[in-house]
Amino acid sequence: MIVAGIDPGSQRTGFGVVRVEGSKIVALHHRVIHLPKDDLCERLGRLYDALSEALALHRPDRVVLESVFHQKNARSALVLGHARGVALLVAGRCGARVSDLSPSEVKRAVTGNGRADKHQVQQMVKILLALPSVPAADAADALAVAVAGATMGRAEARFS
Amino acid sequence: MIVAGIDPGSQRTGFGVVRVEGSKIVALHHRVIHLPKDDLCERLGRLYDALSEALALHRPDRVVLESVFHQKNARSALVLGHARGVALLVAGRCGARVSDLSPSEVKRAVTGNGRADKHQVQQMVKILLALPSVPAADAADALAVAVAGATMGRAEARFS
Repeated sequence: MIVAGIDPGSQRTGFGVVRVEGSKIVALHHRVIHLPKDDLCERLGRLYDALSEALALHRPDRVVLESVFHQKNARSALVLGHARGVALLVAGRCGARVSDLSPSEVKRAVTGNGRADKHQVQQMVKILLALPSVPAADAADALAVAVAGATMGRAEARFS
Repeated sequence: MIVAGIDPGSQRTGFGVVRVEGSKIVALHHRVIHLPKDDLCERLGRLYDALSEALALHRPDRVVLESVFHQKNARSALVLGHARGVALLVAGRCGARVSDLSPSEVKRAVTGNGRADKHQVQQMVKILLALPSVPAADAADALAVAVAGATMGRAEARFS
């Protein structure tokens, strides 16, 4: 099973792909999609193209996004919503099952602790996936979401 | 000049198109795009398809959205942001100039009063465009945005 994690943002979107191989989870790809600052339509177009290309290349069985509960204010929620809407659109079209996990579910799946801090999550992503170094923050977050999705996917598969 | 107005929403998106003919503004089309309630990805996909088709059909020179200043809370801003992100993506790809106008700019352009209420705006849309009746609320709102864009377009053209 191949699982992609997306951490959408209006300036940078993290993308990570893992494959479940028996009891192991292997990182296949991770990157940060940087979006131009000038024009919002341009930015969303770039995000659409980059995510479409990445999902067509890796053909995940599942795409997972982190659910958003807490936003500082309505303005930043709207801005995040723009990027998240485009990410959900692309994910919904790639043939994968799309789902979201809460931040605490992601933290628990990766570190065993639903209240772990960002740094702990990123360190555990490096260790779990045997990466040579901690990836850029947004890519590490996307990998954490993918790992959590893969772990939960295995649990679901066991019970189905 | 052909101007399209979009009033994006997570359940219903208003769409209206007008053409400037000399000193007259003529309604070409208006509709409400209803989105299925069940699945968010499905909903955004439907919005993408419907808007892509409508913009390809009417080939506007300008696409105008209302800017969002006030949202009740971060949750509803995020939900609106999803639909708005998809609308901006599609608008940015259709070759038109995309811009937004504040609610008070739209009200002022349509009624002469930046503080007009929703009902007054919809009545003026009917009168200005010589429509047989007031269109459904979301379609009327989209036409109001298109009329405002057309009016401002004319003003800009005069000064350029």
